[in-house]
Amino acid sequence: MCRAARTGAARHEHHLVSTVRLESFSDGVMAVAITLLALDIGVPNPASTPHLGHALAEQWPVYAAYATSFLTIGIIWINHHVAIGRLARVDHSIVMLNIVLLASVAVIPFGTALLAKYLKQGHGENLAAAVYGGTLMLMAVAFTALNRQILFGRAHLLRTQLSHELRRRIFLRSFSGVIPYVLATALAAVSPYITLGMSAALAAFYATPLSSGIAEER
Amino acid sequence: MCRAARTGAARHEHHLVSTVRLESFSDGVMAVAITLLALDIGVPNPASTPHLGHALAEQWPVYAAYATSFLTIGIIWINHHVAIGRLARVDHSIVMLNIVLLASVAVIPFGTALLAKYLKQGHGENLAAAVYGGTLMLMAVAFTALNRQILFGRAHLLRTQLSHELRRRIFLRSFSGVIPYVLATALAAVSPYITLGMSAALAAFYATPLSSGIAEER
Amino acid sequence: MCRAARTGAARHEHHLVSTVRLESFSDGVMAVAITLLALDIGVPNPASTPHLGHALAEQWPVYAAYATSFLTIGIIWINHHVAIGRLARVDHSIVMLNIVLLASVAVIPFGTALLAKYLKQGHGENLAAAVYGGTLMLMAVAFTALNRQILFGRAHLLRTQLSHELRRRIFLRSFSGVIPYVLATALAAVSPYITLGMSAALAAFYATPLSSGIAEER
Amino acid sequence: MCRAARTGAARHEHHLVSTVRLESFSDGVMAVAITLLALDIGVPNPASTPHLGHALAEQWPVYAAYATSFLTIGIIWINHHVAIGRLARVDHSIVMLNIVLLASVAVIPFGTALLAKYLKQGHGENLAAAVYGGTLMLMAVAFTALNRQILFGRAHLLRTQLSHELRRRIFLRSFSGVIPYVLATALAAVSPYITLGMSAALAAFYATPLSSGIAEER
Repeated sequence: MCRAARTGAARHEHHLVSTVRLESFSDGVMAVAITLLALDIGVPNPASTPHLGHALAEQWPVYAAYATSFLTIGIIWINHHVAIGRLARVDHSIVMLNIVLLASVAVIPFGTALLAKYLKQGHGENLAAAVYGGTLMLMAVAFTALNRQILFGRAHLLRTQLSHELRRRIFLRSFSGVIPYVLATALAAVSPYITLGMSAALAAFYATPLSSGIAEER
Repeated sequence: MCRAARTGAARHEHHLVSTVRLESFSDGVMAVAITLLALDIGVPNPASTPHLGHALAEQWPVYAAYATSFLTIGIIWINHHVAIGRLARVDHSIVMLNIVLLASVAVIPFGTALLAKYLKQGHGENLAAAVYGGTLMLMAVAFTALNRQILFGRAHLLRTQLSHELRRRIFLRSFSGVIPYVLATALAAVSPYITLGMSAALAAFYATPLSSGIAEER
Repeated sequence: MCRAARTGAARHEHHLVSTVRLESFSDGVMAVAITLLALDIGVPNPASTPHLGHALAEQWPVYAAYATSFLTIGIIWINHHVAIGRLARVDHSIVMLNIVLLASVAVIPFGTALLAKYLKQGHGENLAAAVYGGTLMLMAVAFTALNRQILFGRAHLLRTQLSHELRRRIFLRSFSGVIPYVLATALAAVSPYITLGMSAALAAFYATPLSSGIAEER
Repeated sequence: MCRAARTGAARHEHHLVSTVRLESFSDGVMAVAITLLALDIGVPNPASTPHLGHALAEQWPVYAAYATSFLTIGIIWINHHVAIGRLARVDHSIVMLNIVLLASVAVIPFGTALLAKYLKQGHGENLAAAVYGGTLMLMAVAFTALNRQILFGRAHLLRTQLSHELRRRIFLRSFSGVIPYVLATALAAVSPYITLGMSAALAAFYATPLSSGIAEER
């Protein structure tokens, strides 16, 4: 609202979906998805659990998958914030691409639960890891598509004009984030541990300040 | 808040429910409902799943229903945003109609799960599809009733006055959105696949820019 | 934020919890609780359901309880909005009473599920109804306590001063809302249907414009 | 947004994650986690419950754990609000520490369910209590780490400069909050009731106005 006054677009902005409410809805979906992850950490049934310590230790893939997915959704939330924050207003195409991104985020708890449940089974663990890697890859692809539309398709909606060179650089970084997830998904055929390990390493890498693009536009 | 200052209604607005908080609550309900949809995508039990690939492929109705319902709630969210965005303030009648709309949205995950579980069963699939279509129809009816109250019942609460002709056109579009859902629900008697197919097609249609009413009021 | 500037309390407000974030957190909890209600509407297991129509018809207590609780939480949300909207700032005591209110709201899905599951059982239905009525009563008591603190305990935090007479009138209305829930809970000993019927009637009554206090302070 | 204008940081703020959206996302996660707690309050299965009253009375550890965890998350929400409210802007390090805090909050429903289920079992109750205490301790540690970064690591991002002495005092209070949780976790080896009792007592202590730091910075 105040932003509208600032960008001088107040008169027409209510014809478009404001970024304020787009962010509020997206925050809601991502907050629910990230918290639902923890629902997968099951409480072992007392009746069939002679030793709770063993039971809890045995489900370590759940903790590893939880931590990885939580961090990954946390990072996509940061990236989403930065990407939407560049916009003064959004149009229908951006809203729709955003909904596709949210749909891919909402699917991550499923992929996480699948990997956690099959990682130590004697069967299906490669497929489960491929599905897990695939959901993360899908999210990276959806984010790149959204970012592409923001930076090139709807550059006139940006709050401050960015040079073509800068927009290209930002986009390439998004795009290059897809590649390791393609790899992590493909390598599920070799071992599910590679997929989980790579996903965890990627999340840890993006969590470091070095990888942050927050200050890039100065 | 800032909006209040702008519309010059600051002195009295706190006697009414502000649109800001109505939107925040509605965003919350829709965000939870849309994310809970993914909880229906069950992880096949490893003990009773000899082949994970088959098990995942066999539950394709879940994915189809998930994608359709996710997109549908996403689109009602956009429409809701546009409809509420026309208002400077809301009164008791609008808040109550909004709660009815939210109740219908919150029921969609149930309808989705019902259809997904019965689509390939030898029995109950027609009824399940009718219930699914019925929940979407209910949502469309609730939205039309809310829009009618906003455009005609409480036109004096609009932020900018709209001509009767324009309001009539906006309302008719809402209203005409109910008809295909009535059809989709009725045709569940013929085949549940028609209901799911029509619902998916409707969601896809509304997702295209052509159908968007975002710019109509210029 | 803007509100702070308007009330001239900007310098000190960040020492207190702002109403903005109190509302945002409360909206979140109420949105999650209201949407989780629908999770109780179970999908009948295809394997043990010869006739889906019968199975869906038989769980009508679930729908009745769902509709009643959804409307009740919706109405407490309106009342909460109006009550908090009267405040310029909140202090520790208001935040704590608000947390107690939220805890009682978050328990409503449990009470609802309990009533829905036991209403048609041959045993436990009176206790289940008493627990359901009790959770609604608890919510009404928590709201009245919060309102009392706002109107009398911390009257200096109100945005605009209200006469003692007006504050008394507002409080009495809150307080009188507790009584029917006490009755509905007690009458569970006679029949669980009385409890459900009274709760539904109360929700319907508060949903009518007549009962609305939105405009009372003019 | 308005805040940006007020702090005179408008020109650069969109390069950083604003506190507004950080709070909105955090509120979402905490609201979902606090409401999911109530999902653990299970409805006894009518078929295997001869006496509902006994069944409900027997699961009192669930209610005790629910109340304790609800209050604890409510209090961390207040503390979080106060801590973030001191900031004009946030940088990557604060966002990441905030995500770690949210991850620990999202794990609390698991710890709560574990304790509630094992408290009255003949086995595993000490470990369950240790895990419960451990999740609360983790949360306290994560909050202290976040607070440390805010007060010392990124003191230049504070909205108003605070003296080193004051910052030290605030930090020490955070830090001293960790110690009782270490104790409560360790004493799970003696009895799970000590862990639950201490956690409940701590929540009750922090709920009193005496312990509140809301007004400390005046």
